[in-house]
Amino acid sequence: MLEKVFLNVKGKQPLVHCITNYVTVNECANILLASGGSPIMADDLREAAEITALCSSLCLNIGTLNERTVRSMLASGKEANRLGRPVVLDPVGAGASEFRTATAFELLRQVRFAAIRGNSSEIKTIAKGSGTTKGVDADQNDAVSSQNLDSMIAFAKDLSARTGAVIAITGAIDVVADSDSAYVITNGHPMMAKMTGTGCMLSALMAAFAAANADHVLEAAAAAVCLMGLSGEMAYQKTAEQDGGTAAFRMHLIDAVSQMTADQLKGGARIEKR
Amino acid sequence: MLEKVFLNVKGKQPLVHCITNYVTVNECANILLASGGSPIMADDLREAAEITALCSSLCLNIGTLNERTVRSMLASGKEANRLGRPVVLDPVGAGASEFRTATAFELLRQVRFAAIRGNSSEIKTIAKGSGTTKGVDADQNDAVSSQNLDSMIAFAKDLSARTGAVIAITGAIDVVADSDSAYVITNGHPMMAKMTGTGCMLSALMAAFAAANADHVLEAAAAAVCLMGLSGEMAYQKTAEQDGGTAAFRMHLIDAVSQMTADQLKGGARIEKR
Amino acid sequence: MLEKVFLNVKGKQPLVHCITNYVTVNECANILLASGGSPIMADDLREAAEITALCSSLCLNIGTLNERTVRSMLASGKEANRLGRPVVLDPVGAGASEFRTATAFELLRQVRFAAIRGNSSEIKTIAKGSGTTKGVDADQNDAVSSQNLDSMIAFAKDLSARTGAVIAITGAIDVVADSDSAYVITNGHPMMAKMTGTGCMLSALMAAFAAANADHVLEAAAAAVCLMGLSGEMAYQKTAEQDGGTAAFRMHLIDAVSQMTADQLKGGARIEKR
Repeated sequence: MLEKVFLNVKGKQPLVHCITNYVTVNECANILLASGGSPIMADDLREAAEITALCSSLCLNIGTLNERTVRSMLASGKEANRLGRPVVLDPVGAGASEFRTATAFELLRQVRFAAIRGNSSEIKTIAKGSGTTKGVDADQNDAVSSQNLDSMIAFAKDLSARTGAVIAITGAIDVVADSDSAYVITNGHPMMAKMTGTGCMLSALMAAFAAANADHVLEAAAAAVCLMGLSGEMAYQKTAEQDGGTAAFRMHLIDAVSQMTADQLKGGARIEKR
Repeated sequence: MLEKVFLNVKGKQPLVHCITNYVTVNECANILLASGGSPIMADDLREAAEITALCSSLCLNIGTLNERTVRSMLASGKEANRLGRPVVLDPVGAGASEFRTATAFELLRQVRFAAIRGNSSEIKTIAKGSGTTKGVDADQNDAVSSQNLDSMIAFAKDLSARTGAVIAITGAIDVVADSDSAYVITNGHPMMAKMTGTGCMLSALMAAFAAANADHVLEAAAAAVCLMGLSGEMAYQKTAEQDGGTAAFRMHLIDAVSQMTADQLKGGARIEKR
Repeated sequence: MLEKVFLNVKGKQPLVHCITNYVTVNECANILLASGGSPIMADDLREAAEITALCSSLCLNIGTLNERTVRSMLASGKEANRLGRPVVLDPVGAGASEFRTATAFELLRQVRFAAIRGNSSEIKTIAKGSGTTKGVDADQNDAVSSQNLDSMIAFAKDLSARTGAVIAITGAIDVVADSDSAYVITNGHPMMAKMTGTGCMLSALMAAFAAANADHVLEAAAAAVCLMGLSGEMAYQKTAEQDGGTAAFRMHLIDAVSQMTADQLKGGARIEKR
């Protein structure tokens, strides 16, 4: 499964429209190119929907959002829905400010997402406001661990059922779920948290993978998570061998995505269906 | 010729004002520093023209444009014209949206450009709207190749005659032309397309080269194209030797520009006058 | 002193809110992570003050400012003051345009800064308008040198007395002063001027260091200057050994910050109290 999903990106070279933050936009563009996809960034309302229509998928990332770009996200999201193109949401910092939380909810109301990727706090924030009144249990506030894994999987499946989106909760242990099935993935390295942009890059990759595998969004999202995590492991190896620091790691991470083969991905993925 | 043009940039260290996209702005700043120039980025209408007046040249790049920055581009372009400083246009994505196309035309109406650099599709879009009714033949839609080289040169010369700007159509084969003469340049490496920003960086370099060689803009533009292409070749060599990927290539590309000597540029340039 | 200040950043992992330019924002985020801190970038008025309240300190950088972000800087600065969190000002390009100069003065009127860092021209611009009519002597226009060192120290102390902020004038020789004491630091390497963002990164580091050492802002600022300068020296060593250029240097610089130990910092710092 992983190999086919991965090779479809190389073969179809999907063009991905990103409306994203200016902190990690360069990483998002480069990781898309490294994976075999192609990026277009455009955030003005006068062109957002038109650019979306040119593309195979859309990635909406609310880091460094502002009122101008939020309007463009809504316009592009609706256009992608109208055209049946997958849309990925990265609710960066949802829960950190009223504006981010409100924007995430507004996007969820007006746009159907193929996938939503965030850390456990961001996803928890998403879940709280999406139409139930009973909220989310406090233990789901925590990162995914071997202790709470079953409940986190159930939480992700439930949120997927309510939103229609594949849910990816990423961290040391990743959970990727639709309403029926879940994958648990344990690739990755702690050094990924010592550079900015690994989450944003993964969301951009998910948009490329979903575009190239539109009938298998769950598998596409899981493959993107494996690719990123395994690349992090390979990047750590090279960084350690060469006595590098966090900037060398950043380079080796993008390099690893650009050099990954389907065989390596299959061999290195630590993924389990639940 | 190449050596003198190149060394003038090192000697004069031109300050270049860039109004550019936020995807590759960091690369543009670093490539200017690597070449011997110096960057200033400023895109607010309240300071745009004033910053332009401090600088030796201006680079207008319409990637991630918005209504706010378009107004600043117009103000800075007019101020540069008033002061006789060269202005370079990079019409990123012209043709991809009405807004980009209309902005490119508006800039062409209100600002005189010393040079315009784009890929063949972008330049074709520019040509279509610049005042003739007969438009551009469909075969000019294609990339420059050995088959259509003569007609692409004629097209570039004609567009230069109509706009007054040196025209640089870049790709696997580059054509750089004014109304009288053209250079054909075949430096470069396909890996340049696997990272974001090589086009944007080249446009920024052209602005530095035009500033330091104001009486020889055609040669300045051609030298910048050679520098970028040759640096791509050298970067590929290093990347391959060290088994690197696309991010290592990005580093080696900027490194090559920063380490290039006039002798290396002269020796490695594959440039032919037509 | 240096070691304790440095280790406090590693121990407390301060969250730093940056409202900064889009040219070097990625470097600012990565250098904060490399030092042991953590970045949040947010510049919309609807969330700026709320994000500030989550953070341990604030860094205001006026490169690529615009009217929208200036309003957010004021709101965040006032909120940080209200909550007693340190605020660092980087007056990028103050003096280059009326808008930047006026914005720097407006910020100084409405916000109390813990530290202000700039090159000698920027700091001179700040000093001229801060309420005295006698202005600043012309010789202070120049960079800090062994010839004018005493007068530059007196100038920095005087400006600190007038603003209440620690003043850091950085260049080949750095002066870091409050109204009573000054440190003179001579770490660094000329190659730091051949990449974009070393000043911006240093200001972001100062915000992290001030957050983790709120009762010793002078020492915190001086330690950040030593860390950056010494990292520049170590980065130059690696770059030269590997025959790299300016982009390799950029990587090695961030790597050096991420790999620095307290012992290395203590051993390598060239700092003198005056």
